[in-house]
Amino acid sequence: MSHCTILARYRIETCLPVEQAAEIIAGEQSSGTFLPVPGETEELKARARAKVTNIALLEVADTPGLPGGRKPKASAGQPRYQRAEITLAFPFANLGANLPTLVATVCGNLYELADHTGCKLLDLELPPAFGEKYPGPQFGVGGTRRLAGVFDRPLIGTIVKPSVGLSPEQTAGVVRELAEAGIDFIKDDELQADGPHCPLRERVTAVMRVVNQIADRTGKKVMFAFNITDDLEAMLRHHDAVLAAGGTCVMVSLHSVGLPGLLELRRRCALAIHGHRNGWGMYARHPLLGVEYPAWQKLWRLVGADHLHVNGLQNKFWEPDESVVRSIQACRTPMFRPDDIVMPVVSSGQWGGQAPETYRLTGTTDLMYVAGGGIMAHPLGPAAGVRALQQAWEAAVRGIDLNTYAETRPELREAIRTFERSR
Amino acid sequence: MSHCTILARYRIETCLPVEQAAEIIAGEQSSGTFLPVPGETEELKARARAKVTNIALLEVADTPGLPGGRKPKASAGQPRYQRAEITLAFPFANLGANLPTLVATVCGNLYELADHTGCKLLDLELPPAFGEKYPGPQFGVGGTRRLAGVFDRPLIGTIVKPSVGLSPEQTAGVVRELAEAGIDFIKDDELQADGPHCPLRERVTAVMRVVNQIADRTGKKVMFAFNITDDLEAMLRHHDAVLAAGGTCVMVSLHSVGLPGLLELRRRCALAIHGHRNGWGMYARHPLLGVEYPAWQKLWRLVGADHLHVNGLQNKFWEPDESVVRSIQACRTPMFRPDDIVMPVVSSGQWGGQAPETYRLTGTTDLMYVAGGGIMAHPLGPAAGVRALQQAWEAAVRGIDLNTYAETRPELREAIRTFERSR
Repeated sequence: MSHCTILARYRIETCLPVEQAAEIIAGEQSSGTFLPVPGETEELKARARAKVTNIALLEVADTPGLPGGRKPKASAGQPRYQRAEITLAFPFANLGANLPTLVATVCGNLYELADHTGCKLLDLELPPAFGEKYPGPQFGVGGTRRLAGVFDRPLIGTIVKPSVGLSPEQTAGVVRELAEAGIDFIKDDELQADGPHCPLRERVTAVMRVVNQIADRTGKKVMFAFNITDDLEAMLRHHDAVLAAGGTCVMVSLHSVGLPGLLELRRRCALAIHGHRNGWGMYARHPLLGVEYPAWQKLWRLVGADHLHVNGLQNKFWEPDESVVRSIQACRTPMFRPDDIVMPVVSSGQWGGQAPETYRLTGTTDLMYVAGGGIMAHPLGPAAGVRALQQAWEAAVRGIDLNTYAETRPELREAIRTFERSR
Repeated sequence: MSHCTILARYRIETCLPVEQAAEIIAGEQSSGTFLPVPGETEELKARARAKVTNIALLEVADTPGLPGGRKPKASAGQPRYQRAEITLAFPFANLGANLPTLVATVCGNLYELADHTGCKLLDLELPPAFGEKYPGPQFGVGGTRRLAGVFDRPLIGTIVKPSVGLSPEQTAGVVRELAEAGIDFIKDDELQADGPHCPLRERVTAVMRVVNQIADRTGKKVMFAFNITDDLEAMLRHHDAVLAAGGTCVMVSLHSVGLPGLLELRRRCALAIHGHRNGWGMYARHPLLGVEYPAWQKLWRLVGADHLHVNGLQNKFWEPDESVVRSIQACRTPMFRPDDIVMPVVSSGQWGGQAPETYRLTGTTDLMYVAGGGIMAHPLGPAAGVRALQQAWEAAVRGIDLNTYAETRPELREAIRTFERSR
């Protein structure tokens, strides 16, 4: 990997020759224009132009993945939409270590081109200058474990439900029940930020009173991720309030605040940053449009997210398991230094049942395992719900069948009975 | 339009009954969860839950628009994918006037649901509290016209090309040629921000020396949109440099900086903000995924964009003309006050040829008409290129056929000869 090149890998689809489509994309995103103009010298072109460094053909489709493609020549017969992976090399000197301009370069106007009928950014390789300029995660995996006091298993977490509508005191009541149940981590819903029914500052006061009380008594301080997503000034103010109240984590809806917004928070942040990816379906759901997780998560790690949502196996959403596994692995792969990895947040329809497969496919317990109804709706109560999740992970790590392990563990047994049936 | 409701209209596709899919989306984005939990009282649900206020059926498709939809019941025969427009009403009190949380609410996790195979946000209606909290455009149409000194026709603009690679002095040389040609507006490319070959501060110095010299001589100060897209601190510093040098406009890649980033700039900004929408294809290109322009532009206007890109008729990109026309109209429709409209920036493969149709379909000259090669590649030189664009708009407004109007105007005649042939 050259120190002066940014590599971007795409999946594209085109009815042009793939080489031609790839060159058009490379030109559009570097020194190209629609007519040659004075000043566009060959020397300048050679220096600034992105290069196509690899093309690997994939399957051919009969119908286009996206509308708006240029019509193929009439004489060419039935159009064929060739899919391919291409790699473009952008000169680092075109932009320098500037993440916002990187975004404009690798996922900017290229989606608009009529020369393709599909274009998705798959992965990025960035030169070390990005790692030198941007802070990366402050807490990451190790720091989050220290803050939560959990070292030898996944952090078991949950979400305050209902998503929105509870008052600060009602929220604190839910937190008390969950904290008493021995949970490691609780998060606000992304819909619950600083609304009139549940202002952030009052919620912080009410929730942290409970968290601190229980920590004083038991020595275990639950990590609560307060959703401070807001305009920048308010977000920084909210952060300060969480810090002052003894909190350990803030949550941010990443797409709502943008890369510069998160970076600004990170630079003034003393708490773990829980990165929520809501809106992600727009980036990811179509196979020929948007951005895939391996590329996306690099941007957010650079500006300082400590935790990143990855969905979960057998989730309630559209995403296949293989994609979730790849996301977990992406979060755990160092970029520029060994400790710039982040905590994957496994959530969406999770209970203990997915633990063995999650462990088998990822080989790690360095993750946050977040269950909603899987805890609160456990028939023996939330404490049994938490215990059942811990038991499921014990079984997973020890390679013991879940049903076998449940024989002597009523919490897990009840969880299996309840949640396997409800699926 | 109620003062306490946020209305969001979507196009969806589903193989469930549409009412059911709509209710699932409404629940997911308000008070829903995957299992009923204690604390989720009926009173709370009634207060916080989003309501489905309208459903209008559209066509039925045989194949799903997006992958990952829940499999229909085997007994149901060949699945039918019903498309529909639905309107959801979100209680304002769920979030308050908080744009980042609005984004998480109306374009957050809903894209992920397996209960649909397509979901696109079409439009938004926001209560007045959003207009009271957020500043809106500072210059908009009237202010931009005053800054540029152009009142009775579109601002004729162009882009410094090549996109990236010129030094500050080379850039200033291109600007001199264009400014001498009588252009109203020039913009950096979105790929050119603060790279090592062309640092922003040096570019500002070199370009503004030329702009100010020519303004002193002719009384006409070209509006140059410097691309200050960057991390927040740098962006604000760049803004100050442009202001100090006598500039009148800064350009920002909107998706690169995010809503809170642009708002922060707007609050400290003394210049017109030129909003570049690169990356927009990801939001817009698929008919069943993402966000359409009427919804999108409202968010960016609220936080202070003065100009918003809309593509152009017969553009070089994928977008059909009807979509471009709708975007122009959206920018010109007041939200909360008559002057919160913004300048649509018409660009992409434009020359004078699209002027008559653009005027016929929009009825306005309150726009920026940006041509790249259409000016620089004019056979009689850039001054003739600018004059030809002005002539094309004169003909458009007066309802005179372009070829007729060109008979006595060599600049327009040459433009037609050159650019109609090259299309």
